[in-house]
Amino acid sequence: MTDRRQTPPDANRRSEASRRAILMAAFELVGEVGYARLSIEGIAARAGVGKQTIYRWWPSKGAVLFDAFLSLSEGQEGDAALPDTGDLEADLKEVLRATVAELTDPRFDEPMRALNTEIATDPELAARYAEQLEEPMKELKKTRLRKAQEAGQLPADLDLDVAVDLLWGAVHRRWLYRSGPLTSDYADAVVKTALTGLYAR
Amino acid sequence: MTDRRQTPPDANRRSEASRRAILMAAFELVGEVGYARLSIEGIAARAGVGKQTIYRWWPSKGAVLFDAFLSLSEGQEGDAALPDTGDLEADLKEVLRATVAELTDPRFDEPMRALNTEIATDPELAARYAEQLEEPMKELKKTRLRKAQEAGQLPADLDLDVAVDLLWGAVHRRWLYRSGPLTSDYADAVVKTALTGLYAR
Repeated sequence: MTDRRQTPPDANRRSEASRRAILMAAFELVGEVGYARLSIEGIAARAGVGKQTIYRWWPSKGAVLFDAFLSLSEGQEGDAALPDTGDLEADLKEVLRATVAELTDPRFDEPMRALNTEIATDPELAARYAEQLEEPMKELKKTRLRKAQEAGQLPADLDLDVAVDLLWGAVHRRWLYRSGPLTSDYADAVVKTALTGLYAR
Repeated sequence: MTDRRQTPPDANRRSEASRRAILMAAFELVGEVGYARLSIEGIAARAGVGKQTIYRWWPSKGAVLFDAFLSLSEGQEGDAALPDTGDLEADLKEVLRATVAELTDPRFDEPMRALNTEIATDPELAARYAEQLEEPMKELKKTRLRKAQEAGQLPADLDLDVAVDLLWGAVHRRWLYRSGPLTSDYADAVVKTALTGLYAR
């Protein structure tokens, strides 16, 4: 995946340290004060840098937060793959339980809501999100489902985009609207119901 | 459903006219300028009322927009029910196609994104949204699914909340992230795949 983030042309060890401090500060602060009260000034103070250092690299607090998320996933790409034990249901349950655990982790909940807010209303950020986070993640999910197709567990003509939307859309919607308990049991029920279908068998 | 919105105690015909003008102005304006640039001043100017008239009834632009949505669904409750021809798949496709049509209607797309943004970050508004819009809608959906259970088309032990999340979560996620074409064909594929399941039959 090509790195298209804005980085300083003279990036050296010191500016890399500042960059990391800024991203960590943005991530921590949004969890503490919420997105509405997150400010470039606040991030700068927490990171121990000047405001201008931030504005030199990022146009907005949304852009800083986005890169903070991107940095969390850095270095995970080499061996990133969904579990494949051959038991599709067990593997998907493990993955959706991990998704639930992350979405309900207080350290992630507020920053992810903030990122969702920005994505919903900022088409440019939405495009970067799709390209750099959503699409690579979706490919991992589809790769696992494709293996199940090859093993004859899923029909060859299954629309994998629809499958991904069904599995993760349910969990995501419940998280975003806080419309019910978001638990491991719920993750299991989503996987089981999506795999076997609503119809009586 | 009890109406718990803030309404003036001396609500008469004239203030009702002002209220409707304000709600319509908020709905139109957010579609034109986006939520970030929506302001109480702008709404007041468009509605032909003073700012104080708005602040007397609503604490924020988010609250105005929320009531604008609520007023759209007013008077629809008496005969609101999902279609029931006995053909569950056809009925659900009709409903999800209508959902897709609304989400992709330019008059609704931007206001609904704005409302989603507010709901994701404002727990109080999220609670009102759940109580006054989401839950009543969800009950209609579950009522239709319950009829299918009674007809033996769906298993009696199906978790209807999971079923609703699967069907509408997929469509909602694709809309919010603009992660793929949101079309009638997509609505049909979601219904068919959710009903029959991902597994090969």
